[in-house]
Amino acid sequence: MKVRVGVVGGSGYMGGEVLRVLVGLPQVELAWATSRTPGPVERVHPNLYGSGLGFVRLDDASAADFVFLALPAEISIPVAARFLDGGARVIALGSAFRLKDRALWERVYGLKHGAWQLAEEAVCGVSELHRDEICGARLVANPGCFSSAAILGLAPLLRTGRIDPGHLVVDGLSGTAGAGADFSRAIHHPEIGENVVFYNVVGHRHTFEMEQELSRVAGQPVRVYFTPCYVPIVRGIAAVCRGFVTKRVGRADLLAIYRQFYEDHPFVEVYDQPKESGASWQYLPYPWVRSVAGTNYCFIGLDVDEERGSVVVISVLDSIGKGGAQAGVENLNLMAGFERTLGLADRGLHP
Amino acid sequence: MKVRVGVVGGSGYMGGEVLRVLVGLPQVELAWATSRTPGPVERVHPNLYGSGLGFVRLDDASAADFVFLALPAEISIPVAARFLDGGARVIALGSAFRLKDRALWERVYGLKHGAWQLAEEAVCGVSELHRDEICGARLVANPGCFSSAAILGLAPLLRTGRIDPGHLVVDGLSGTAGAGADFSRAIHHPEIGENVVFYNVVGHRHTFEMEQELSRVAGQPVRVYFTPCYVPIVRGIAAVCRGFVTKRVGRADLLAIYRQFYEDHPFVEVYDQPKESGASWQYLPYPWVRSVAGTNYCFIGLDVDEERGSVVVISVLDSIGKGGAQAGVENLNLMAGFERTLGLADRGLHP
Amino acid sequence: MKVRVGVVGGSGYMGGEVLRVLVGLPQVELAWATSRTPGPVERVHPNLYGSGLGFVRLDDASAADFVFLALPAEISIPVAARFLDGGARVIALGSAFRLKDRALWERVYGLKHGAWQLAEEAVCGVSELHRDEICGARLVANPGCFSSAAILGLAPLLRTGRIDPGHLVVDGLSGTAGAGADFSRAIHHPEIGENVVFYNVVGHRHTFEMEQELSRVAGQPVRVYFTPCYVPIVRGIAAVCRGFVTKRVGRADLLAIYRQFYEDHPFVEVYDQPKESGASWQYLPYPWVRSVAGTNYCFIGLDVDEERGSVVVISVLDSIGKGGAQAGVENLNLMAGFERTLGLADRGLHP
Amino acid sequence: MKVRVGVVGGSGYMGGEVLRVLVGLPQVELAWATSRTPGPVERVHPNLYGSGLGFVRLDDASAADFVFLALPAEISIPVAARFLDGGARVIALGSAFRLKDRALWERVYGLKHGAWQLAEEAVCGVSELHRDEICGARLVANPGCFSSAAILGLAPLLRTGRIDPGHLVVDGLSGTAGAGADFSRAIHHPEIGENVVFYNVVGHRHTFEMEQELSRVAGQPVRVYFTPCYVPIVRGIAAVCRGFVTKRVGRADLLAIYRQFYEDHPFVEVYDQPKESGASWQYLPYPWVRSVAGTNYCFIGLDVDEERGSVVVISVLDSIGKGGAQAGVENLNLMAGFERTLGLADRGLHP
Repeated sequence: MKVRVGVVGGSGYMGGEVLRVLVGLPQVELAWATSRTPGPVERVHPNLYGSGLGFVRLDDASAADFVFLALPAEISIPVAARFLDGGARVIALGSAFRLKDRALWERVYGLKHGAWQLAEEAVCGVSELHRDEICGARLVANPGCFSSAAILGLAPLLRTGRIDPGHLVVDGLSGTAGAGADFSRAIHHPEIGENVVFYNVVGHRHTFEMEQELSRVAGQPVRVYFTPCYVPIVRGIAAVCRGFVTKRVGRADLLAIYRQFYEDHPFVEVYDQPKESGASWQYLPYPWVRSVAGTNYCFIGLDVDEERGSVVVISVLDSIGKGGAQAGVENLNLMAGFERTLGLADRGLHP
Repeated sequence: MKVRVGVVGGSGYMGGEVLRVLVGLPQVELAWATSRTPGPVERVHPNLYGSGLGFVRLDDASAADFVFLALPAEISIPVAARFLDGGARVIALGSAFRLKDRALWERVYGLKHGAWQLAEEAVCGVSELHRDEICGARLVANPGCFSSAAILGLAPLLRTGRIDPGHLVVDGLSGTAGAGADFSRAIHHPEIGENVVFYNVVGHRHTFEMEQELSRVAGQPVRVYFTPCYVPIVRGIAAVCRGFVTKRVGRADLLAIYRQFYEDHPFVEVYDQPKESGASWQYLPYPWVRSVAGTNYCFIGLDVDEERGSVVVISVLDSIGKGGAQAGVENLNLMAGFERTLGLADRGLHP
Repeated sequence: MKVRVGVVGGSGYMGGEVLRVLVGLPQVELAWATSRTPGPVERVHPNLYGSGLGFVRLDDASAADFVFLALPAEISIPVAARFLDGGARVIALGSAFRLKDRALWERVYGLKHGAWQLAEEAVCGVSELHRDEICGARLVANPGCFSSAAILGLAPLLRTGRIDPGHLVVDGLSGTAGAGADFSRAIHHPEIGENVVFYNVVGHRHTFEMEQELSRVAGQPVRVYFTPCYVPIVRGIAAVCRGFVTKRVGRADLLAIYRQFYEDHPFVEVYDQPKESGASWQYLPYPWVRSVAGTNYCFIGLDVDEERGSVVVISVLDSIGKGGAQAGVENLNLMAGFERTLGLADRGLHP
Repeated sequence: MKVRVGVVGGSGYMGGEVLRVLVGLPQVELAWATSRTPGPVERVHPNLYGSGLGFVRLDDASAADFVFLALPAEISIPVAARFLDGGARVIALGSAFRLKDRALWERVYGLKHGAWQLAEEAVCGVSELHRDEICGARLVANPGCFSSAAILGLAPLLRTGRIDPGHLVVDGLSGTAGAGADFSRAIHHPEIGENVVFYNVVGHRHTFEMEQELSRVAGQPVRVYFTPCYVPIVRGIAAVCRGFVTKRVGRADLLAIYRQFYEDHPFVEVYDQPKESGASWQYLPYPWVRSVAGTNYCFIGLDVDEERGSVVVISVLDSIGKGGAQAGVENLNLMAGFERTLGLADRGLHP
């Protein structure tokens, strides 16, 4: 029996990715996708040319078993409530239900939250940390792309108890897909081409998602110093995470800890290639963004500066793959009782 | 029952793509892949990190039902003979068996051909033109990437008989993946970044493949004037094909002719979006390279300049997708009696 | 004595480039630059941070000796008239005064032309073809970027009389700077990144500028079949020009003809590097776009397919350098009696 | 009177940039440039097509007043000695003479240093910190590109005494030009295109240059945690520098301190644009890499997270501009008594 799935906000990049992954899966009936401009999906997403999919208005969206929300925070709150009331289970890809501290959420987003009980109910959509809760959840809130990368990259490290939780420095490098389909100067090609554009270098919203989830993992308050930038690639992000060790730890030990942490999880690869350079494996000791672009994988590599007492973790994923829409589909799979890898098993491209 | 498949030349981009597509398919046993440097596949193809695949030396390659050859012309001729003699069916992704005129081949490649009877036996691997022959072939020779794009783009047009066969102008824009894994100045990032690099602007080898196959389709000699360049993208190529009409023809008529030509073929989309611009479908009347990158699709769009009496056909595909390795897998599917779309159904990314 | 120069439309890429080139030249007083949003120039052009330049409203622009117009066609017509009436000499970088056939202009632009006598008066701003007229002109109209590249690339060839004037095929590859500072889907980075976007593949407006000027050079009507696309680079364009020979001609002869044609002109380099490949000069027989990006140079290379009877000319320049703003400054230099190379002598970057 | 200048290692990117900047300057006689392959410069640097420059073998290099060394460390030591002995003054762009601790240098480079007295004599080539010494120096050693960016970015901050000197975190994003003209996998376009490649994430050689120079500025030992990566741009780098404050400090105060620090220095712009977003100045509060690409400028912006007690400094420059060859020319200007800005005054491009 197929599950009926709807996508609210199908003309954006997140919604379009949900459609791309789900189209053609025998277990899924793509019931509808919404857009402010109804019409053929292919006029927005040319990769789906010939798919026959079309957009409807949100008012015309019927009941569904599962609903993806790919909407700005403000809009998505009443829409989530509507579909939950109608019996659907909801996977929210936006930021409406990510934080558990209402005052913080309202300060960060500059909005009053109209349905805070939903934020309280929402399960954090990081399957590696909340799988069982996700399976039974009515409402799942996927974190932001940088948050996903940093949380996956730092959670095992914080579990070791050997890292200073007060000084975690995270640099985020994002492809432009993460900025979305709306035009803006930062991703206007003549501006971002051959450029690096920094923004919100202090106080970026994802900081608080990282701190919330990593504090939970660490069992104590964590401070993250996060600085993002756009680099001229389309898909994929990297989080470069730095911690200062409070108790000596080696690279091999850390890799073993990471491997154990993720051993039941098919989409995180703890990445470890030889550091000495060989003819064909030059520049491979740390994971590449491109290796996970377009996929639901997160590759995590790391190194230790024993002299200086620091750890560097490189965590790469695709902001609309494992950092967004595909992680949402993974959650759909968990919630619907499908194979966790359904529709998501493809490896990235090389080159 | 699984078929046993081997890949000769697995460390190049073509061979790696065959591995990426076939890994995990239940119908296929990846028997082996060869490389001059045995070892883990992931040291060359980091996208396959954790796949457990390894390279063996060519001498250690065992028997197989199907063998992909991803090798330079000179080397691949005796290797093809060896595996054919051993009972395998061979899909050659290189240029050893593409031309039917021995003198021309030997002039173009500057080599003596050591097994010309194989070149004579080889079936051209364009499934849209040679499906039935491919199904029964022992040796299939896939054309070059530009040739694939131009042949698919121009074959229906030549069938109309309304085009001057003596003056077909083709511009080829290639991503750097098409140039391969070997280092060279044209695809050294500091040189090709923010650049366009023209090469072989007259006499490129693919010219002769285009002329051979299009002459066959047209039933008369065809002249192609082909000029390629590298543009700073990785995957995907475009062939811009121009013909001068000998008898008036309109855009709608041509689109209908193209649709009929490809109606039984799942991987060619005759692309037609509105020319008038709308808020969301700006710049979409002609196909985008990115829409087919990483896939086995070829999207073909066209337009007619009625005032000047010319037709422009835009044909886009991925040089190691439909223009290479994935087209080879499509031929494997035909030869092995699988679904033609097995392992190849994915749509490209947007964005 | 300094000349007073004003720039109308200084917040666009063309206007900004005029400012960048002229700022700091002792011979020039940058009297003003206009923008709909007055304020520091650096908020629009961050490269000019610290320059102290500011924008004024067009209404506040005072008299000047020379005025650059970097405006859409419709707007620039009355503005040109205003400044000409005030005694200024005008260099129009837009399309208002480029065509000499009024009916054609009005059809192509879909507008009534409000000051056609100015279009008749305007001198075509290709200094290599109209130097003496430009020196004395009151109004100079610089052609479009693709037109500049194709006209410079094909003019000497047409002079030979050995080329079929009815079938010139021109492919244009443009960086995104040529599309301007206004946002649009074609140059939204997530859409154009790793992509090639074709547009107006028949009937592009620059076609008519090429035909007008090349017909003049040839002394007979010329037909150009022009197809443009955007490639994901910022600065620079290439025009790949193909002609069919009516009378045999060799590469060396053509190069000599081109060299003679441009011998008095400092910004056109007839480009000729060895075709046989060497360790360090691989891929250099034809000019690179990057070599001229940011400059006022046009590099022209060519080759002859003697077997097929065709000539390929590769003409590269920067759409806002020699194909726009810097060519405008070159015309200012001619009009003001300066050294023709004033402010323009810099070579492009490598890498 | 002209000074005679020679360039050792003219076929690399650093050497080529020296040639590009110096060619045509009336104050400079380009006496010679060396390469292992003598011949026209344009076969290596196509931007200089038509310049008439040629390479000679190092053995054929004559005496000169000033010699630029653009060579690997090992080779450059005896070459420096040779030219210094011959009476030339030397500007070393490589790493032979950058560190003052011999044991450290020999460990970091894995070499014995054959002329340590030269390393001791060498003046650090950061003109903003060592102008007077440079003016009189016989041997100047320019630091690495990342070092230049981080030193310029952090020196004023350390002078405040309000920053923890033991925990400075620096992320380096580099264009591929910084990796040089030699082929390698990290800058093979199919590998780096649409990718971010991390390398030497702990223990990168530039770390020690930063620590040496910043410790000198701070008057106490400084610890830098530096992680570099390549991003798919050609020219330009960014250093994202993070410090933890030991005593509260505000953004405006810091900007004033930085401005004062650099007030006599024409090539450092302390960058400060409004943080609130406006229609045209979106994404401009921090400097862009592209604004300084191809130039001798360093733009430095910063922000303070008062809640978390941290400072972020964004320092951008071109690795072969202010972070390499052009900074070398600036030092030539100081040493020769020229205007400091001779040949270097150009602003970067926008777009």
